[in-house]
Amino acid sequence: MAEAEAPNRSPEIRKDRIHNRWVLFSPARSRRPSDFKAKSNPQPNNKTECPFCAGHEHECAPEIFRVPADSTADWKIRVIQNLFPAVSRELEFQNSVSALGDVAASGFGFHDVVIESPVHSINMSDLSPSQVGEVMLAFKKRVEQLQNCDNVKYVQVFKNHGASAGASMSHSHSQMIALPIVPPAVSARLDSMREYYKQTGKCSLCDIQPNELLIDQSAHFISLVPFAATFAFEIWIIPRDHSSHFHELDNEKANDLGGLLKLVLLKMSLQLNNPPFNLLIHTSPFQVDPSYAPSTHWFLQIAPHLSGVGGFEIATGCHINPVFPEDAAKILRDVRIL
Amino acid sequence: MAEAEAPNRSPEIRKDRIHNRWVLFSPARSRRPSDFKAKSNPQPNNKTECPFCAGHEHECAPEIFRVPADSTADWKIRVIQNLFPAVSRELEFQNSVSALGDVAASGFGFHDVVIESPVHSINMSDLSPSQVGEVMLAFKKRVEQLQNCDNVKYVQVFKNHGASAGASMSHSHSQMIALPIVPPAVSARLDSMREYYKQTGKCSLCDIQPNELLIDQSAHFISLVPFAATFAFEIWIIPRDHSSHFHELDNEKANDLGGLLKLVLLKMSLQLNNPPFNLLIHTSPFQVDPSYAPSTHWFLQIAPHLSGVGGFEIATGCHINPVFPEDAAKILRDVRIL
Ligand SMILES: Nc1ncnc2c1ncn2[C@@H]1O[C@H](COP(=O)(O)OP(=O)(O)O[C@H]2O[C@H](CO)[C@@H](O)[C@H](O)[C@H]2O)[C@@H](O)[C@H]1O
Ligand SMILES: Nc1ncnc2c1ncn2[C@@H]1O[C@H](COP(=O)(O)OP(=O)(O)O[C@H]2O[C@H](CO)[C@@H](O)[C@H](O)[C@H]2O)[C@@H](O)[C@H]1O
Repeated sequence: MAEAEAPNRSPEIRKDRIHNRWVLFSPARSRRPSDFKAKSNPQPNNKTECPFCAGHEHECAPEIFRVPADSTADWKIRVIQNLFPAVSRELEFQNSVSALGDVAASGFGFHDVVIESPVHSINMSDLSPSQVGEVMLAFKKRVEQLQNCDNVKYVQVFKNHGASAGASMSHSHSQMIALPIVPPAVSARLDSMREYYKQTGKCSLCDIQPNELLIDQSAHFISLVPFAATFAFEIWIIPRDHSSHFHELDNEKANDLGGLLKLVLLKMSLQLNNPPFNLLIHTSPFQVDPSYAPSTHWFLQIAPHLSGVGGFEIATGCHINPVFPEDAAKILRDVRIL
Repeated sequence: MAEAEAPNRSPEIRKDRIHNRWVLFSPARSRRPSDFKAKSNPQPNNKTECPFCAGHEHECAPEIFRVPADSTADWKIRVIQNLFPAVSRELEFQNSVSALGDVAASGFGFHDVVIESPVHSINMSDLSPSQVGEVMLAFKKRVEQLQNCDNVKYVQVFKNHGASAGASMSHSHSQMIALPIVPPAVSARLDSMREYYKQTGKCSLCDIQPNELLIDQSAHFISLVPFAATFAFEIWIIPRDHSSHFHELDNEKANDLGGLLKLVLLKMSLQLNNPPFNLLIHTSPFQVDPSYAPSTHWFLQIAPHLSGVGGFEIATGCHINPVFPEDAAKILRDVRIL
């Protein structure tokens, strides 16, 4: 990329008044390292240089906490600051409107990394069900900490696996970005779910009847391919009981979720040959108008990247999916784990 | 990708009731060929096998028209049907709502390809200004034909250049998809622009004061980096005069646009080393409520793909852009074409 250095600039969040959406500007991001020489190499194994590996803790940005809390060399999970954050915890939150009517805000927020294993070659699907559950509980603990920070409205937890899903680091990790705004896609989801509730008197996710879209289920969760999946072989994991916020997850449910998540990740990896994917936790803003409570229901989305997107999707927001959800669900349902 | 054959299925458009957006399902798409062995190879030159080259017309889906209209071997532009269409011109348009409340529609629509040159190695930026203008007029002519087809609400014109911008064919081409629905991103754009009009009494694009965001200008158009650019080095070309529909473009303006578009494409290609990009024409649905007319203004967007997107963008709709628009504009303004 061409150099466009602006070393003394703070990150900023700006509103595109044409599309009515927010964009984060973060000059520091262009300096972050990449494991990947070419985007086609999904899992390089340059373990010796990886700052996320055990023994390299000093190469990382400051730690927030580790699991177990009192562990030294033998940690299982570390939650750390992102060394190249998209938003900055040191800024004051400020909104501004320019003379020309342009809306901008300071790039305040928190951007953290969750290292999911001390071992470089371990993927999330290689962890045991209870270890996956512990990763979920680490997300929860950090979300609860962020809830106590002023001006944080929404926390997005996400995982990039593989270069073409955006990952620049191959060591298994997730990220969390805490924002002073409610992102447009989140507002749109909340509004859409409330609309369904108004029309039917039911929560759209409680009301789902998976039938031929079902993949697997556990005591507290179901996994399915959504009716209008954006991506081929997309998977959702939905809590059976109505719950607006991911961080309402208790220990028992986290453990149960760990088992189901491991299972569908393994199935996807076997069937689709370890594809690049994103894992996203769709939850609610910390403070929601009480009128949203009966209709908002958190869920987890796994989006494999089997083909890229092109100009049509960018322009229209409509995705083109070559695989019918019923077919994808049948294939994933039938994968046998040896 | 895993095989999920469903040979006798028609394409279908389904509504995701959670996110309130439409998704196209198109089994045929998974069978389309690809020029690219790996996503990292931006411009392979397998000319001998390319169906878009002069002399290979018989390998293509049916032609709709060519430019010049009466040319035989010496055509300059061909507009043809897409051999692997995402939507089908043979289906009836039908909406349905299932017993479970799921909304779907038949996958009716038109999916065409515009071959922009008979020569494999010519990029759009290699064409002369008037040739680029002729491509714009070919888009216009096809949009006008589609306007006369029943049930077509919106036409998206887009170009994918380079594998990581989604292109599967390297020969210079664009595509047009005519849809029986107004895509969500288009409605959102129209609503957002109308909101600005309500608040200020002005069209948001007529009212733009490019200042430090300006790149270049011509008699009828300006090019700039938008204030809240989604992509690093993103470029917009905006008609100076208020105009809701791209297909209002006349011959003189098309020629003028050809010159400015060629210039910014050349600058981008020189500065950023022929990056993958999408070119998008953002226009209005054929029929818009008259209340939208004073606020909707078509424009052209060029979105280079210098880095991929990850889970955060997919989940939130917020993009992270490492380059401030003022810096990108200055760099692009200063590129010297030899
Ligand atoms: N002989 C022939 N005659 C007629 N047409 C022919 C043909 N051979 C190939 N085609 C068509 O030519 C088109 C070339 O299009 P592009 O290279 O711009 O990207 P494509 O549509 O494949 O997918 C990209 O764009 C779409 C839409 O944005 C995304 O869904 C997708 O992920 C991304 O890779 C294809 O649509 C193909 O079907
Ligand atoms: N020593 C260290 N200590 C602490 N942190 C370190 C570190 N070394 C690197 N990091 C951070 O680790 C993170 C690794 O994240 P990922 O590999 O998931 O993708 P990344 O955030 O780079 O970008 C992807 O995800 C984002 C968000 O979706 C997209 O904007 C982008 O295009 C896509 O490539 C990076 O954010 C990096 O800043």
